[in-house]
Amino acid sequence: MTSKDGYSWTEAQGLKAGVPSIGVIQPPTNLEGKDSTYDVIVVGAGYTGLATVRDATLAGLKVLLIEARDRIGGRSWSSNIDGYPYEMGGTWVYWNQPNVWREIARYDMQDDLESSYDFSQGINKFLLSNAKGVQKFTHEEEDTLMASALTKLINVDGNLAKDTVRFPHSATIEPSARKYDYMSVADRLREIGDDLSPNERACAEAWVLLASGATLETSSFYELLHWWALCDYSYEGCINSLIHYKFRRGQSSFAIRFFQEALSTGNLTYTFNSPVATIKESQNGVQVITRDGRHFSARKMVSSIPLNVLGDVKFDPPLSAGKTKAASIGHVNQTVKVHAEVAEKDLRSMTCVSYPHNSLIYGIADGTTPAGNTHVVAFGGSHSHFHPEDNVKYAIDAFKGFSPMTVQRLVFHNWSRDEFAKGAWFFSGPGLLADHLQDMRASTQHIVFACSDWAKGWRSFIDGAIEEGTRAAAQVVKALATDKSAAKSKL
Amino acid sequence: MTSKDGYSWTEAQGLKAGVPSIGVIQPPTNLEGKDSTYDVIVVGAGYTGLATVRDATLAGLKVLLIEARDRIGGRSWSSNIDGYPYEMGGTWVYWNQPNVWREIARYDMQDDLESSYDFSQGINKFLLSNAKGVQKFTHEEEDTLMASALTKLINVDGNLAKDTVRFPHSATIEPSARKYDYMSVADRLREIGDDLSPNERACAEAWVLLASGATLETSSFYELLHWWALCDYSYEGCINSLIHYKFRRGQSSFAIRFFQEALSTGNLTYTFNSPVATIKESQNGVQVITRDGRHFSARKMVSSIPLNVLGDVKFDPPLSAGKTKAASIGHVNQTVKVHAEVAEKDLRSMTCVSYPHNSLIYGIADGTTPAGNTHVVAFGGSHSHFHPEDNVKYAIDAFKGFSPMTVQRLVFHNWSRDEFAKGAWFFSGPGLLADHLQDMRASTQHIVFACSDWAKGWRSFIDGAIEEGTRAAAQVVKALATDKSAAKSKL
Repeated sequence: MTSKDGYSWTEAQGLKAGVPSIGVIQPPTNLEGKDSTYDVIVVGAGYTGLATVRDATLAGLKVLLIEARDRIGGRSWSSNIDGYPYEMGGTWVYWNQPNVWREIARYDMQDDLESSYDFSQGINKFLLSNAKGVQKFTHEEEDTLMASALTKLINVDGNLAKDTVRFPHSATIEPSARKYDYMSVADRLREIGDDLSPNERACAEAWVLLASGATLETSSFYELLHWWALCDYSYEGCINSLIHYKFRRGQSSFAIRFFQEALSTGNLTYTFNSPVATIKESQNGVQVITRDGRHFSARKMVSSIPLNVLGDVKFDPPLSAGKTKAASIGHVNQTVKVHAEVAEKDLRSMTCVSYPHNSLIYGIADGTTPAGNTHVVAFGGSHSHFHPEDNVKYAIDAFKGFSPMTVQRLVFHNWSRDEFAKGAWFFSGPGLLADHLQDMRASTQHIVFACSDWAKGWRSFIDGAIEEGTRAAAQVVKALATDKSAAKSKL
Repeated sequence: MTSKDGYSWTEAQGLKAGVPSIGVIQPPTNLEGKDSTYDVIVVGAGYTGLATVRDATLAGLKVLLIEARDRIGGRSWSSNIDGYPYEMGGTWVYWNQPNVWREIARYDMQDDLESSYDFSQGINKFLLSNAKGVQKFTHEEEDTLMASALTKLINVDGNLAKDTVRFPHSATIEPSARKYDYMSVADRLREIGDDLSPNERACAEAWVLLASGATLETSSFYELLHWWALCDYSYEGCINSLIHYKFRRGQSSFAIRFFQEALSTGNLTYTFNSPVATIKESQNGVQVITRDGRHFSARKMVSSIPLNVLGDVKFDPPLSAGKTKAASIGHVNQTVKVHAEVAEKDLRSMTCVSYPHNSLIYGIADGTTPAGNTHVVAFGGSHSHFHPEDNVKYAIDAFKGFSPMTVQRLVFHNWSRDEFAKGAWFFSGPGLLADHLQDMRASTQHIVFACSDWAKGWRSFIDGAIEEGTRAAAQVVKALATDKSAAKSKL
């Protein structure tokens, strides 16, 4: 099945919109012939929506899932080209991510993971480039350099931030840490000044931009500390948690399990290709109106609409002032993630930083394609933003900014122009979390707002999405059970 | 409510059997007036059984929970004396334990944790004693010594065992690691010989015995490597995961959430004080007969009976040869865990190893009691086993083996004499896992055997129990749904 989302390019085929994915749902709806009474409407079929729908249908609720796209997964999905998965968004998982790992264990998929890295072949180097040229390091030297750079950047308390973000899974930002949310990473870099060697500075800045997809000035320093704490306060933990283990058959092979399980209950109705225009809440429940004018009603609703597009849906009555403000500020991540299939087999063990002159900043060899070529994944963002589909040659040149290579294929999803995401994973600018995290998390009488963008723990991650979906389902199941017993006691 | 389980002692009251706990369920059954048709019978109300029951009732199944004791929690429960929790068994949790953490997040209890440690007061030392006397170290020196000792012990591959136990959450023991399961820790210690300084050796051995509750000869070296891998391959990880964060109001404040949620569905029937004598399986389902002669039937059953007592229940037809063998071998953990309330406030920051001469080997100050006294928790085991209730003075003297102290209260559960546990948390002797892990995990046609003792990841831990309960519920829900659709298609 081919999604409308994503792009691929080869010399022979040129640029093509839409890539195949096992996450595309066909037929796109099972509305026909269904009873149209729902307990819950869930808007959005990313991991938050999928976890909500799975838990709620298992609990016996009649659920309607409404999704704007033709596929599940939201900002995490894999294209499957010649059977090989290219991850268009969220990719890596690790066993210190509790919500995602609980599901991996539950679906017995713990042996379906593989390492992105293979440090055994060819040019087994870390390439650190700037405008003047390239330096080559062993991966051990890379680890030492990165660890030193990041440690200096985050070590605000002389204890690797362990005394500053003590409980990274709490929804509360500790009072002593709030000031860091009003600082940008650029502020912090000015604070530590010359502590960083030029190479350390390049590595630290490239790493921050890899995390935030933004600029040093627009990235909250607290959110970086929060990532660091989640990753067990070490560079090695960051590597393990953020960019190491992925699904052998792609993210969509995982997401589809939630969908299929929900479907198997007989309690799931769904409609894809159905962007939502208006959400009306009244004393009795919620009405959802799609752009094509269909009306759906339910007692409760779960919105998993991401922060950056929440303002595009009309809420009646309007969202709270705090939520409206947060949505208007938005998050700052405009990551450009591009995959390249390259002819050079001996690049399989390469990692690279090319900064600050290059539009792709961070790259790693991510696998070997069915044709035996090397698969390189690379990241850029607001620092030097570009739209790969507008200028394929520019994108290819950005890959060459890492190392000479013969690019035979590009695969990517332009998250910045995606009207249902308007950005990649959540990363906050200064002040947003300190001022509005609780606003973003707040529910109304009948609507739970659940999204990885405001998760307690692994905010921005698949784990945070499942955390939020789990919370939403539990909240709705409880509320409806309470309604039911209240109704009974009135009889 | 007071459980029959556990003991307390004070000078004034003497030794008393039974301690108060919020995990005691009153009334002990809600069988009366219930329809006696069940989809599933769950035997055992530890975390495995609780997770099974919670998930299965939420999924709409009619569940009967049968528990031998008067309380929930199995090998993890807290007594609550003067409102203060003493943890009788499983205590500590951490956010790299995915199944337990998912539940903590789901029940919004992530802010209910506190640190056992408070390194800010009085005798802020690590006391390392042997028969000759006591050495005092700072906690930084303790960390250095412990890390060095454990690193030497586990470093079989020059990479901190990372190349040996690469995927600690897999149910498969990697072929290259199997040989370590046929080795005891004593074998490994002989292998590294003089690499350990005398202090390192004392620390390493004490730590192993803390983990296993057994002896160096009877502890599988692989299982130790597995713990190490689960703890992110570092001593700091071990501390964080194993002995750092606990529930402010005790384990039973967490366990009760599962029970209450299951009860709120209306699908849970339960009977406590109901040891099971016989389990009969036929083509159509399972019949469970209690010692007092009551018969219960259901289509499916989940046994969360621990390995060391599995042989005490009669199965008809008998358990498989592999399972029978595993149960007859059993696990080796005979931990003696004892709490003391001591008058010395200035011991609040103390940690201790007293080895090999003392019967309590490892102790830490674990809290401050409502009376302002220090709460010390200590561990012994097969190395120099004793039954505290047989000789309170001996137990008090073992505490004094750490440091002079005035013991005002003892609280403990004798797991070795507990007929429903016959030991503490699972720890395997050499060969058991390599030979029988898959046997222990195997289901029959209608019975799922689920227990932390054979979990994939955090085996022995609360996390492993919830992992197993999650698996069991999902398996039973799926099987009954399949039966139902098969039945429908026959109509």
